[in-house]
Amino acid sequence: MSLAARNDFGISDVVGMDAVAFRRMVREGGYSGSTAAVAPGNVQANLAILSAEEASDFLRFCVRNPKPCPIVGMSEPGDPRIPELGEDLDIRTDIPRYRLWRDGELVDEPTDIKALWKNDSVAFALGCSFSFEEALLQADVPIRHIEKGTNVSMWRTNIQCAPAGKFHGPMVVSMRPMTPADAIRAIQITGRMPNVHGAPVHFGDPAAIGIADITKPDYGDPVEIRPGEVPVFWACGVTPQSVVQAAKLSLCITHAPGSMLVTDARNGRMEG
Amino acid sequence: MSLAARNDFGISDVVGMDAVAFRRMVREGGYSGSTAAVAPGNVQANLAILSAEEASDFLRFCVRNPKPCPIVGMSEPGDPRIPELGEDLDIRTDIPRYRLWRDGELVDEPTDIKALWKNDSVAFALGCSFSFEEALLQADVPIRHIEKGTNVSMWRTNIQCAPAGKFHGPMVVSMRPMTPADAIRAIQITGRMPNVHGAPVHFGDPAAIGIADITKPDYGDPVEIRPGEVPVFWACGVTPQSVVQAAKLSLCITHAPGSMLVTDARNGRMEG
Repeated sequence: MSLAARNDFGISDVVGMDAVAFRRMVREGGYSGSTAAVAPGNVQANLAILSAEEASDFLRFCVRNPKPCPIVGMSEPGDPRIPELGEDLDIRTDIPRYRLWRDGELVDEPTDIKALWKNDSVAFALGCSFSFEEALLQADVPIRHIEKGTNVSMWRTNIQCAPAGKFHGPMVVSMRPMTPADAIRAIQITGRMPNVHGAPVHFGDPAAIGIADITKPDYGDPVEIRPGEVPVFWACGVTPQSVVQAAKLSLCITHAPGSMLVTDARNGRMEG
Repeated sequence: MSLAARNDFGISDVVGMDAVAFRRMVREGGYSGSTAAVAPGNVQANLAILSAEEASDFLRFCVRNPKPCPIVGMSEPGDPRIPELGEDLDIRTDIPRYRLWRDGELVDEPTDIKALWKNDSVAFALGCSFSFEEALLQADVPIRHIEKGTNVSMWRTNIQCAPAGKFHGPMVVSMRPMTPADAIRAIQITGRMPNVHGAPVHFGDPAAIGIADITKPDYGDPVEIRPGEVPVFWACGVTPQSVVQAAKLSLCITHAPGSMLVTDARNGRMEG
């Protein structure tokens, strides 16, 4: 079976698929699409791979900015495994689609990075809003962009991250419109999940965090804010991507948007 | 020493006083003022005393409306003790000033109710916002009415309590203006304290809960809302007082505003 033929698998084939089976399928080159509906209840993670030298600064950056950059797992230098997120997990092959950045520019979107992994490469798996969105839906807090089948709205803000070495820049936030009653419950629920972005960083007036136009997101799709609703803003996993991009590293590897690392960790264990 | 002489004790004499010593002093007729600064860290409670027949309905009312009416303790019918709130506690004497209501009308403000306690009287001690305000101040969330030395602003809302027997009516809320960032922390902190009103019921637009004029509270004092702040609304312990008043019971006894039951229970144990 050729790689092209294997890649014929589509989203409908992976809905509800088990994490171990899904990673094996991806590893064998069988899928390069979205992970949104894969392994419900399992933690999906943002990826950043850097050289050991840069990883030291980046680790400090994550520790100083836990809301946008919650570390759910990381590799030893040169070792492509992250056993705490999956016994068999191989970070070089198990993500459906990667993004390759050179000097801050996107240069490729490969489906494996075996040839790029070095003996000083370090992989960071960072928490993702999929985990808290699942908790909100289970608590009957509606999430409009999921109902509409669109991507969450995201903006760069005027909230500066705490810098570390060459890593610095503004926090990126995602926004979900909610009634105040739902926002209060969402704050309580996500506040108990600090490993996946935690409580919101702001609600209400977008200008207060430097967002000029709430109808025009910097990333993702626009979403309607209905009368009686307020925009609620969470720190977003796009922040570290934006920061590593701005640092213009000679080489950096991330996941492609929506094509996450599917782990064996469970969302129900992401409470702090 | 005459009762009049004993009553010369003022607020400055009771600041930081131990709960057991304070109740003994009150029991002996030595103080009839505010309990605001007494026994820091201890739970202070709202009081409602009803006949056993009405207490049965009122208990259901409290259970159905835990945010405005969180029960922190209650007596057996006819027994004036609530040992879980203080070994020595005598609910007939230990509150500095009571309010006596007949047919929904305030008729007296006695300093003890020994003559009014009956063999079917039931006392309810209900959680009070002093407990969560202390937790907010400890977490460096500023509370303007405390800084200004005024009473918290309160309103009757259009949020109807769940009825039980003859008890029904609108929820009363207290309001504290905060920045969104402080409001998010306050929601997390008070959400962990369901026995003392829990998380807010609303924030933002006052009209959404039937408040016509945010500068004119129904009870308490007005408070400034500064640019960049939003009003945050908590269910308030005045709700049960308003409800028992509206029920026009032949006899009902409550505490006088600010003159609370000082218990041995600790605020730090009010997490749910």
